[in-house]
Order: sequence, then structure tokens, then C-alpha cells
Amino acid sequence: MADGTTRANEERLWQTLMDLAKIGATPGGGVGRIALTEDDRKARDQFVAWCKEAGCDVRVDRMGNIFARRPGLDADRPPVMTGSHLDTQPLGGRFDGIFGVLAGLEVVRSLNDAGIDTVAPLDIVVWTDEEGVRFSAGMVASGVFAGKYDLDYGLGIVDGDGVTFGEALKTIGYAGTEDVGGIPVEAFFEAHIEQGPILENDAIPIGVVLGAQGQRCFRVTVEGEEGHAGTLPMEMRRDAMLGAARMIDAINGIAFQYDPHPVITVGLVNVRPNSPNTIPGQVYFSIDSRHPDNDTLKAVEADMRAACETIAGDGGYGLDVELVSERESTVFHRDCVEAVADAADTADLPYREIYSGAGHDACNLALCAPTGMIFVPCEGGISHNERENARPSDLAAGCTVLMHAMLNRAGVA
Amino acid sequence: MADGTTRANEERLWQTLMDLAKIGATPGGGVGRIALTEDDRKARDQFVAWCKEAGCDVRVDRMGNIFARRPGLDADRPPVMTGSHLDTQPLGGRFDGIFGVLAGLEVVRSLNDAGIDTVAPLDIVVWTDEEGVRFSAGMVASGVFAGKYDLDYGLGIVDGDGVTFGEALKTIGYAGTEDVGGIPVEAFFEAHIEQGPILENDAIPIGVVLGAQGQRCFRVTVEGEEGHAGTLPMEMRRDAMLGAARMIDAINGIAFQYDPHPVITVGLVNVRPNSPNTIPGQVYFSIDSRHPDNDTLKAVEADMRAACETIAGDGGYGLDVELVSERESTVFHRDCVEAVADAADTADLPYREIYSGAGHDACNLALCAPTGMIFVPCEGGISHNERENARPSDLAAGCTVLMHAMLNRAGVA
Repeated sequence: MADGTTRANEERLWQTLMDLAKIGATPGGGVGRIALTEDDRKARDQFVAWCKEAGCDVRVDRMGNIFARRPGLDADRPPVMTGSHLDTQPLGGRFDGIFGVLAGLEVVRSLNDAGIDTVAPLDIVVWTDEEGVRFSAGMVASGVFAGKYDLDYGLGIVDGDGVTFGEALKTIGYAGTEDVGGIPVEAFFEAHIEQGPILENDAIPIGVVLGAQGQRCFRVTVEGEEGHAGTLPMEMRRDAMLGAARMIDAINGIAFQYDPHPVITVGLVNVRPNSPNTIPGQVYFSIDSRHPDNDTLKAVEADMRAACETIAGDGGYGLDVELVSERESTVFHRDCVEAVADAADTADLPYREIYSGAGHDACNLALCAPTGMIFVPCEGGISHNERENARPSDLAAGCTVLMHAMLNRAGVA
Repeated sequence: MADGTTRANEERLWQTLMDLAKIGATPGGGVGRIALTEDDRKARDQFVAWCKEAGCDVRVDRMGNIFARRPGLDADRPPVMTGSHLDTQPLGGRFDGIFGVLAGLEVVRSLNDAGIDTVAPLDIVVWTDEEGVRFSAGMVASGVFAGKYDLDYGLGIVDGDGVTFGEALKTIGYAGTEDVGGIPVEAFFEAHIEQGPILENDAIPIGVVLGAQGQRCFRVTVEGEEGHAGTLPMEMRRDAMLGAARMIDAINGIAFQYDPHPVITVGLVNVRPNSPNTIPGQVYFSIDSRHPDNDTLKAVEADMRAACETIAGDGGYGLDVELVSERESTVFHRDCVEAVADAADTADLPYREIYSGAGHDACNLALCAPTGMIFVPCEGGISHNERENARPSDLAAGCTVLMHAMLNRAGVA
């Protein structure tokens, strides 16, 4: 019988992570293991071997998603799933995605050690190509599973050389035969490093993820007029950089007018002609805005557009604000969020509620199944970087919480 | 005897300008005639031929400066000089510098036509390499003449291939034998297109130039901290672009606190890493500040530094403000300024007082002789550009004013 003393094996989890990090290891201490490459195949093969050793049955669907099942006592019950992805950015880290998969493996191993059986089966899932590096579109395989995309679309997307996703799956031997999705799922949990600094800053090991932020990205073009820095009087200028600077300041201020604050970032600024003695004639800048609530995100957009228009009007600037991408926010299932919080209580681990700033396969799964996520701290909030790091004790704590949340939903015999 | 009806010949002046514009003409309608090249030699030869046709004696000094003298009645009187330069930017215009030289030629031709003799001799001067394109240092030859630089320095500066200025002068046949400067000059006048929009905007043909602005240029580096656009909360950010934007706005505002306004330009902004989903960790930007008064320019610098420091302190940014170049302002001689204004009155031409935003050979001459400048409008204020343009009537008006100012100082027989 499981209780709060049933915990993940910290050393084994860490060793498994470090063993997998050897496949595609980079000189800088990270991992470069792009989806649907030979290194991806090696990592998948290793994962499958470990799962079989742990007594799991392994199936692969037509999008290459791997499902390693620890049977439950009632084979007719929908599975409780957990998982994430094994692929990385070109210069990625050892934990992003990989922790979520191997935490699932460690849950199975720990339950085996403790002799705990569940009523519903448990599936450890590897979602294919979360990062979207080679095919420039991430989270497609979990999206097909959740019914967001058609299978034909998923198999047909092409890389820069014109190779399709389906062909690449065959090349690495992971073009499975199982139907993709369309089956009942009792619950899906994904454990993941936070990829931000909040948990580390608060010295709290567990983040109970309430949802994932929606995102709206814009391209803003400010048209002024070029002129000679020495000869054009100030009152005759239409300095596009001055206009852009005022917009950037105003846009930042808008974030603080909402509670909780959206995150708003102007990360890219390009000035033309970008010469010290020429008044800028045109400035282009990006806006990345994110918030857990879609309506708030739309209100923020309206505020930002109004602020830019006012500044453009006052300064006589031309203005174009183009929406270049958007992603709806995700609200995780109340039962799953509670299961994660209860699991942290059971294991006597401090937690706080948190939103995901980035997208995850769990955001797709939330479209077809009750879903929740568990965050653990990562060093300096750094991710998508070879320096990505996390403490073994935090990773084990996240794994323990994952185990209890899965047991909660699967039922213990 | 000269009176207000003695005027420059507009058609002849224009035709002479257009003839010289053929040497080094660019496909875009401008002129690319870099100093100390074969095209520079051709333009010099043409100028010398015209001057000799007009009855001038031509001498060349050791810095290649050309002096074409129309004798006065009193050979012992110091000359009244006028001139500018014949070299251009790589994609320059037909008027910058060239107008000032050929206006001098037109003065001589017009005086010949009118049978007017002066007491003091008149010199038309071509200053070598005003633009400083090939040797990366402009206005050196007039600087040696004025005693600002040593002759050895001037002859010794090298181009990108290691060729010295002195060698390049020999190659084009303009390494003269006359001593450089060190002689009394009654007055120096330089006619020039404004290179700014003020006269055109005011529909006034003549600018009486009071002086040239001083200039102080800075490199500002704002150090913040990179972070993930989706995961780093607003209140934990040190967004270097936000800091830079606030500084750019504040710096602009400082210009309007002084009367007359300095011109302050942030023309170059470089953001690192300049990625839409990464909070900028570092921003570097340029400041170009100019004002006719050196003390004001220093006060503006102090204000700008204080504003940047306050913003950096409030935002937790690292800040470095480096002075990268400075040029003292020039105040033209009261007698010469008055001579130009009186000349405009004599010719019944509207004028306004104006400062030069750019540097000119006249700024060097002001170090060794009473000096003044005459500006004429140019189209759209555009200069250092193939599209540089000016109206024949404005150019002739400037030439007429130049003539009367020179007569004023030289004395009419």
C-alpha cells in the first residue's frame, strides 16, 4: 500500500538521466538530440529497453509516439498516462522533456520495488518531436493524438530537404502501426523543469501547474523620416527610434496594469539605417505577450495597440502592428491539478501554484483528457541551453509527486 | 564700380557645376570623386584650366591645396580667399564642396565681365581631401594650412593600403612646392549648400552662418540580464532594451530644455541577443550631440549622463557612457559675418542667421584668419547622397553674396 513514505529513488533517477544524456552529448555539457535523427533512435531504443526490463509492454503509434504500459489490475480501465519528449534543441539541456519521460520510468520502477499495483494501467509516453527543430513545427505528434491535427498533416510535414515526417519515422524504425489517439485516457500528467526562475527564487521544490499561458506575438513597424544628425532641427524630426522607444516603455507599463501581470517582451529591435549620424527612418520591433487568460491577453493587445497609435499620432509616425502568431492559453483539469497538490501534501513536499510560460505536449493532451503538470526548479531558470541544470533532490521530489498523483487517478489495489 | 546690380551669372555657374559633375559621375546622378584619385586629378586639372582662362595665377602648396589668384591693385595686401573642396563621398552629390570652389571661379569671371578691380588680391582655393574617405581623416590639408596640424603629420597619414598622403599627392601631380599656410589672410569666405532643411523650409535663399556646431559623440552600453520571454516574471526582469528605451526618450527631452536646442540623435541601436523570445541582456546605442556653444554642449552631456545614470540606478542596469569623439564649436569672425549680411542686403536677397551642423574647411581657417560662410538651400536638406540637388537661382544668389562680401573685404578700386 502506498503512503507518503513511498518515494522515487533519487540516485537511480539521476543515473538514468545522466546515462541518457550521453546520447547526443555536446562538448558544452548539454544535449543536441534533434527529433527523428539517429541519436533520437538510440535514445528511444534505450528507453524501450529500460521499460521492457521494468516489465512494460511497448507499443508505437503511426506518429512514432511510444507507449510503455505497466498493466493495471483492470485491463478495461483507460490508462493513466505520463510522459514528455526525448528530443532536444540543437544546443539543449539534459532535462527539458527527458525528465518527464524518465520520471515516468522511475515511477514504474519505484512501484515495482514497493510491490504496488494499480487498478488502471499506467502508460509512460514519449511524444515525437516536441521541439520542432528539424520540421519547424513542434508538438505535432501529441497534437495528432489529441485530435488537434489530422494524421495526414502530421505525417506529411517536410523538413528543409523535403523529407516527410512519415519517411523520417521509417528511417529511424519508429513508424508504428497503432492508431494515433482516439482512445479514452483516464488522466495525463507531465513532469517538467520549470524553465523559469520562480520556484528556485521561492526555494519551493514543487510547482502545481494551473495551466499554460496563451501567447500573442506582434511585429511593429514605426515609419519616421531619415535625416542628418547635425543639420535637421529637433522640432522638424520624425525620429522612428524615438517613437519606438516611447512605445517600448509604454508597452512595458501596460503589463503592470494587470494582476497577475502578463509577461510582455520586446526582444528584437532593428533600426534603419542604424548609423550614428543619421536620424532613424524606420524601426521594426517584436512584441511577445503571454498571459494565462485569453481574454486578458486580448485586452492587453488592445491596450498596446492604443498606446502605439497614440504615440504614432503624437509624433507623426506611420505605424503597422501585425499579429504574427497566437496560441490559446490552457487551463488544466481541476481534478488533475488537485491530484498534484494532494500528492505534494501526501509526500510532505512544499508546493506553489504556477503557470507555464512555454508550450508543452500536455497543452495538447488537455484537449482530449484530464491533464495536469508538475514543475520542478531548474538552476537560474535556464533552459534551451547546454547549461540547463537541476538538483537531483528536486527531480526526485517531482517524481514522487508524479507517482502519488498517478496513483490517485489510477487507484491502488 | 560694384553695386547691388552686379550679380553672378546663373547660367554660367550652373553649366560649370554640371561640367565638373561629369568627372566621377555615378549612375544614380551623383558624383563619386574620392580625394587623391585619378578623378580628383582630372577635376583639379579642369579647375586650373578654367582659372588660367580667367586670368588667374595658380600655385599649389605641399599639401596639394590649390590657390588661383586674381591679382589686386596692391600686391602687398593679404589676399581675400574663398573656396572649398572638389572631392566627394563615394556616393556623393554634385554640390557639396564643389559649389564653394566654382562660386569663387564665378566671382572672378563676373568681376572680369564687370571690369571691377579689387585692392587686395582674391584667391580661389581648393582644399585637398575635405571628406576624408580614402585616408579616414578629413579636413587635414586646411588644418595644416591653419597651423592646427604639422605638415609632417599631414603628409604622413596613410590609406588602407599603406600609401601616404604625400605619395598620393605625387601620383596625381599635385605635390606642390609652396609652403603650407603661415601667411596673412585678409579674410576667408566659404559658400556651401546648407546640407539641412532650414533655408528651404523658410523659403530663404541665403544663410548667414554664425558658426559651426561643436559635436560630442558617445557610446552607451546598458547591461541587463537575458531571460526567457515566457517564464521570467516582469518584476524579476532587468530588460536592457527597456532601460535603453527610457534613456533614449530622456535624452531627446533634454534637447528641448535648452534654447537654442542642441541636436541630439540616437541613430544606432544594437540589441543582444536580438531574439523575439529572449529578454535583451545588453543594448548598445550611439549618441550624437551638437550645439554652437561648447559650454552648452558640456552641460547637455552632464544632463544626459545624469539621466542615464538615474534610469540605470532605478532599473538595476550596468551602464557605461563613453565619449568617442568631440569637436569644438566654431564662432565665425564678426566682421566676416557682417560682411555676408551686408552683401545680402546690398544684393537685396533675404537671409537668415544659421549655424552649420557639419564641419567645413572654414572651421579650420577660422583658426588663422577672419572667416565667414554663406549657405544656400539644398533640396530636402539632402547631402552626402547622389540625390543632392539645389536650384540654379539659389546657387547664383549665394555666389552674388559671396562676391559682395569679398569686395567688401578686398576693397574696390
